[in-house]
Amino acid sequence: MERGFLSFPPGSDGSVDVAVVGCGYWGPNLVRNLVENRTCRRIVCCDTDTDKLARLSKRYPNLLYTSDYDEVLKDSTIDAVMVATPVSTHYDVASRALASGKHTFIEKPMTATSEQSLKLMEKAAAGRLTLMVGHTFEYSPPVIKIRELIEANELGMVYYVSSVRVNLGLHQSDISVVWDLAPHDLSMLFYWLKESPSRVYAMGKAYVQKGIPDVAFISMEFDSGVIAHVQVSWLSPSKIRRTTIVGSGKMLIYDDTDHSEKVKLFDKGVDFSEPQTFGEFQLSYRSGDIVSPKLATYEPLQAEVEHFLHCVLSGERPRSDGASGLRVVRVLEAVERSMANGCTVECGQPEFIG
Amino acid sequence: MERGFLSFPPGSDGSVDVAVVGCGYWGPNLVRNLVENRTCRRIVCCDTDTDKLARLSKRYPNLLYTSDYDEVLKDSTIDAVMVATPVSTHYDVASRALASGKHTFIEKPMTATSEQSLKLMEKAAAGRLTLMVGHTFEYSPPVIKIRELIEANELGMVYYVSSVRVNLGLHQSDISVVWDLAPHDLSMLFYWLKESPSRVYAMGKAYVQKGIPDVAFISMEFDSGVIAHVQVSWLSPSKIRRTTIVGSGKMLIYDDTDHSEKVKLFDKGVDFSEPQTFGEFQLSYRSGDIVSPKLATYEPLQAEVEHFLHCVLSGERPRSDGASGLRVVRVLEAVERSMANGCTVECGQPEFIG
Amino acid sequence: MERGFLSFPPGSDGSVDVAVVGCGYWGPNLVRNLVENRTCRRIVCCDTDTDKLARLSKRYPNLLYTSDYDEVLKDSTIDAVMVATPVSTHYDVASRALASGKHTFIEKPMTATSEQSLKLMEKAAAGRLTLMVGHTFEYSPPVIKIRELIEANELGMVYYVSSVRVNLGLHQSDISVVWDLAPHDLSMLFYWLKESPSRVYAMGKAYVQKGIPDVAFISMEFDSGVIAHVQVSWLSPSKIRRTTIVGSGKMLIYDDTDHSEKVKLFDKGVDFSEPQTFGEFQLSYRSGDIVSPKLATYEPLQAEVEHFLHCVLSGERPRSDGASGLRVVRVLEAVERSMANGCTVECGQPEFIG
Amino acid sequence: MERGFLSFPPGSDGSVDVAVVGCGYWGPNLVRNLVENRTCRRIVCCDTDTDKLARLSKRYPNLLYTSDYDEVLKDSTIDAVMVATPVSTHYDVASRALASGKHTFIEKPMTATSEQSLKLMEKAAAGRLTLMVGHTFEYSPPVIKIRELIEANELGMVYYVSSVRVNLGLHQSDISVVWDLAPHDLSMLFYWLKESPSRVYAMGKAYVQKGIPDVAFISMEFDSGVIAHVQVSWLSPSKIRRTTIVGSGKMLIYDDTDHSEKVKLFDKGVDFSEPQTFGEFQLSYRSGDIVSPKLATYEPLQAEVEHFLHCVLSGERPRSDGASGLRVVRVLEAVERSMANGCTVECGQPEFIG
Repeated sequence: MERGFLSFPPGSDGSVDVAVVGCGYWGPNLVRNLVENRTCRRIVCCDTDTDKLARLSKRYPNLLYTSDYDEVLKDSTIDAVMVATPVSTHYDVASRALASGKHTFIEKPMTATSEQSLKLMEKAAAGRLTLMVGHTFEYSPPVIKIRELIEANELGMVYYVSSVRVNLGLHQSDISVVWDLAPHDLSMLFYWLKESPSRVYAMGKAYVQKGIPDVAFISMEFDSGVIAHVQVSWLSPSKIRRTTIVGSGKMLIYDDTDHSEKVKLFDKGVDFSEPQTFGEFQLSYRSGDIVSPKLATYEPLQAEVEHFLHCVLSGERPRSDGASGLRVVRVLEAVERSMANGCTVECGQPEFIG
Repeated sequence: MERGFLSFPPGSDGSVDVAVVGCGYWGPNLVRNLVENRTCRRIVCCDTDTDKLARLSKRYPNLLYTSDYDEVLKDSTIDAVMVATPVSTHYDVASRALASGKHTFIEKPMTATSEQSLKLMEKAAAGRLTLMVGHTFEYSPPVIKIRELIEANELGMVYYVSSVRVNLGLHQSDISVVWDLAPHDLSMLFYWLKESPSRVYAMGKAYVQKGIPDVAFISMEFDSGVIAHVQVSWLSPSKIRRTTIVGSGKMLIYDDTDHSEKVKLFDKGVDFSEPQTFGEFQLSYRSGDIVSPKLATYEPLQAEVEHFLHCVLSGERPRSDGASGLRVVRVLEAVERSMANGCTVECGQPEFIG
Repeated sequence: MERGFLSFPPGSDGSVDVAVVGCGYWGPNLVRNLVENRTCRRIVCCDTDTDKLARLSKRYPNLLYTSDYDEVLKDSTIDAVMVATPVSTHYDVASRALASGKHTFIEKPMTATSEQSLKLMEKAAAGRLTLMVGHTFEYSPPVIKIRELIEANELGMVYYVSSVRVNLGLHQSDISVVWDLAPHDLSMLFYWLKESPSRVYAMGKAYVQKGIPDVAFISMEFDSGVIAHVQVSWLSPSKIRRTTIVGSGKMLIYDDTDHSEKVKLFDKGVDFSEPQTFGEFQLSYRSGDIVSPKLATYEPLQAEVEHFLHCVLSGERPRSDGASGLRVVRVLEAVERSMANGCTVECGQPEFIG
Repeated sequence: MERGFLSFPPGSDGSVDVAVVGCGYWGPNLVRNLVENRTCRRIVCCDTDTDKLARLSKRYPNLLYTSDYDEVLKDSTIDAVMVATPVSTHYDVASRALASGKHTFIEKPMTATSEQSLKLMEKAAAGRLTLMVGHTFEYSPPVIKIRELIEANELGMVYYVSSVRVNLGLHQSDISVVWDLAPHDLSMLFYWLKESPSRVYAMGKAYVQKGIPDVAFISMEFDSGVIAHVQVSWLSPSKIRRTTIVGSGKMLIYDDTDHSEKVKLFDKGVDFSEPQTFGEFQLSYRSGDIVSPKLATYEPLQAEVEHFLHCVLSGERPRSDGASGLRVVRVLEAVERSMANGCTVECGQPEFIG
């Protein structure tokens, strides 16, 4: 410290030491939220590419940096590992973390295959370790509000859900747009409906990179009678994140790009009136108030990181636990099979989620 | 005429006598446009329900009204019949009109089966009569502008099209939302792409009226490589009429509910840069000007009626001729089969349209 | 009637005979609404330009037409006159109608001077005749809903109102944009606030036609403490009809171009918290639900015409009576003076309106 | 550094040492941009409130911190001072910086009085020091694009400008909404028009804090014939940053809250056609393409900081120099006088700006 200037202690009151593995596109967002989190004490950033670490260290000079994952694994003071590496490596990285007795957070999608997800769940259970998947939207105020509205029966019986998640880029070179973007919609759907689909059909196509679909239209049927549709694309003129939920009572639009009214609840629907003489029931259309409920304003990623650290400390089961991650991966596999063979694919035993 | 007041001759310079058959929901729109059309001379309104005629006569006291279709058919001065009756009756009404030597216009969808469409085409050909289908959007300024942009190669190679046509109601009691709303999107698609699809998959569901789907998600593949998706619904919180077309060169959004910028052309896309050393091609995203081209401002329905009368007089083949109507009905049939059996349906020999 | 066709009686159950004087741009809208109104019996259309009458007669062949206003005045069966002539002639046309004992409706603005408005009020009072001004917005569902919200104290104390009414054209050749467009905002303001302003300042300019301002910015102060601002223009890239009302309790946006959510009520504001130790009050910002209340869906002009005929029959005082018309004209005069001399202009004794 | 972890040199290649004085609301934004700027070497953060410094040091542990401004002034290695203190202290802080031979950047508005601005200009000139004011919008891509469009005569002759800058909060306790928000609009206006106004009228009111207006409507006249209107408010239901510029050729909307189309150029206007026989010119309305030109995507504040450091190094006169700051303060003073006395205020000799 130069003379004449003030000196502040770096300190943090936190008690959990965390390593972030993978500091490319997404990892730095985890780092930023860990830095601001009071539960977190020491932060280790790990990536095989030291250039990425050097860049990160400009902004966060007080963190620890290593290019050697083994250093992380053998450092017994590190309580938890957060995995933000490419999807194909999720299983290996997470598996070694769990084997080293570390609580583990994995970015979505959980793994490249459902088999891998199952194995990780077993390892975590065996080691009594927290296993959480980064389904960020389950920690987002509008998504939580929508679950509350559905639970409070504001929508009546949910009929169908239609979701659009499109923008220009970023083309991934290792996974398709389905594995990149659809996990958001799938995890929200299962969180809201408390159910996974029984049948899936998808049509998609690879335009820019051979073999890596960048556009897909996904239809799903649920045993409860709900149908859902998800459109994902890296080739779209404008960014759209818009989900419509239609129920027997009310209807709802969730537009995540709208700054002031992310959720709009429409008191709209079709009502049946008694047949007046004999003959058919009469339909009438109800169109009442439109309400944008007040939403909490915290950052979902911050709540997600907070939740992970809370589960690490308390032993509580995370909202987006391994089973949640597995559920999404299973449907992604079904979608991929359907896109490959042009047929509807059964998803196996659908779950009703507690 | 009361004394002291001016008297104006009712007259019209037109030369074509037209009967509108079916004066319920849509027929009066045809009547309104015929009244304002200079080519049309005498207008006969025909409906079995005289209450509907009486109501119409309040607004148009100088037209002719009949509840007997035979009167229309045997009136040799009537040159043309415009059919706006329920879809299930289209074939019968149109068939008799053609048999009576009258040029015939049929509202979309052309008929309830493709077999019926084929028969009408044969009858019209045999009688050298004009046969036209009310694919109104093919006469709409934004739709025509989009065809011009595609023909001028402004979009490059068309990759995919995604269309949404949803609103609350009106539930039809005789046809599903697919037969009610999708003909608009299908006729536009075929008009733009000059191609019909080879395979169709659709998922839909009947929520309000048993057996009559009110929501459907339709995926299509074309032999050229284009894929298209159409969402139609009578159960939606807001009215959306929005089509996105993504090409290798530019991208386009057509929003028919936007009053000032129905068509927006985005100079956006993915460009490939030479691999710099060895290894992969680099992708870069191009994002240039956004242009809303000036559009003509006439009413599509007026242009459609004008075109029909022009074809009647000139013998010219209508833009939306019988073949066009048949093409739409064939895909509607495939969509219905797919919805029923949950499988992809081949559409038979796809056409490349002159 | 040709043989073989049905014949419907033209009839109407109405009992009031009405003449519309001036059938240029706006008059036909009055005619259309009179035709559909059940209270109205005979309709006479009067204009010095017979071409305009001939055109109107194509659409409404069963009405009566005359180019001679004297014919209207001396026809004792005509109960009421609706004046849609140029503003400069309002006084003369209405004055003669009242002198002939006819109930009189005048399009806004009521007259070219406040002196003329006063005289008409006196004549109507003397003859016990209905005198109504076409402040259409006072009959519009969103405007009425806003008055109800204010009366129910939903906004708390109204702080200020800001209104924008701009579009491209139509340039009038006889009156400025202030006299053309501002009457809408002024009549709404007075209807909501039940008060007229004490001071006015306006800046405007004539760009396209010498001496006829096509852009103006109008500021107003009310004795209650409210301030209001109105921007009007015929030179604007997009059509905007947007009024913001800010109160101590809630805030409101009224966007008349929005089809689904014309009125939005924001539970937003600034709250004061107790000074914690000593010192200043703390401000906190409240941001709760946003609600678009359900609105009735009738056409304002139809309600206005209905209200006039109702007042004619019942002798009831119209909502937008002569005093209401005078109030608007007085402020228009003040605005004009302010624009001419660049100073704030006192509006004379402001009124608190019952 | 803990063993086993990588160590990265903190270093920067920059050559300019900068002190930021005032680290409350805005200062940290300057700090963030200095940290990322390659021209900057050492950064000193100065504030009398050490809590603010302590908080800042958590994020930027490698910067220097002091609560004693004298330390900054007497440190001869510090080349430049950036002032982000309350407006009332701008003059004193900047004056001492210049007296100590330091290049000086001052946040907008430059000073609390025009006299103070003049004095600072003199001091800077005497010391051959850079003096720059933080008119950030002059460094913003849409604002620069608009200046280019005007210079290229794309709008023709500019008729009028109307600007709205409103939102809920933040109420300042030392300056009115006029001094807080209007400098943005004024600096843009003068940058675009290259002219300052000759006359100003403003109406405003203090609703929440006694004596501190939170709503104002400002009208301005320029000798060139342009008129401009600026609405500013801390009491508004939604955040609006929207400027409309209407010219004789085209019209333009600049909406700073729109992420994809901040600038829209409308090929709209009024054209005169030759009088056909004798009599008046005919007006016709032109409505062509609407274009959203591609804009650069850098952060304005980053460009502003870069520009200041560039001027410090090169001795170049900043775009937003002292004269620019003075021009804004003079109009703010006129606005305040007009609000106080309810009259139009002459702004003294208007400038045409090189």
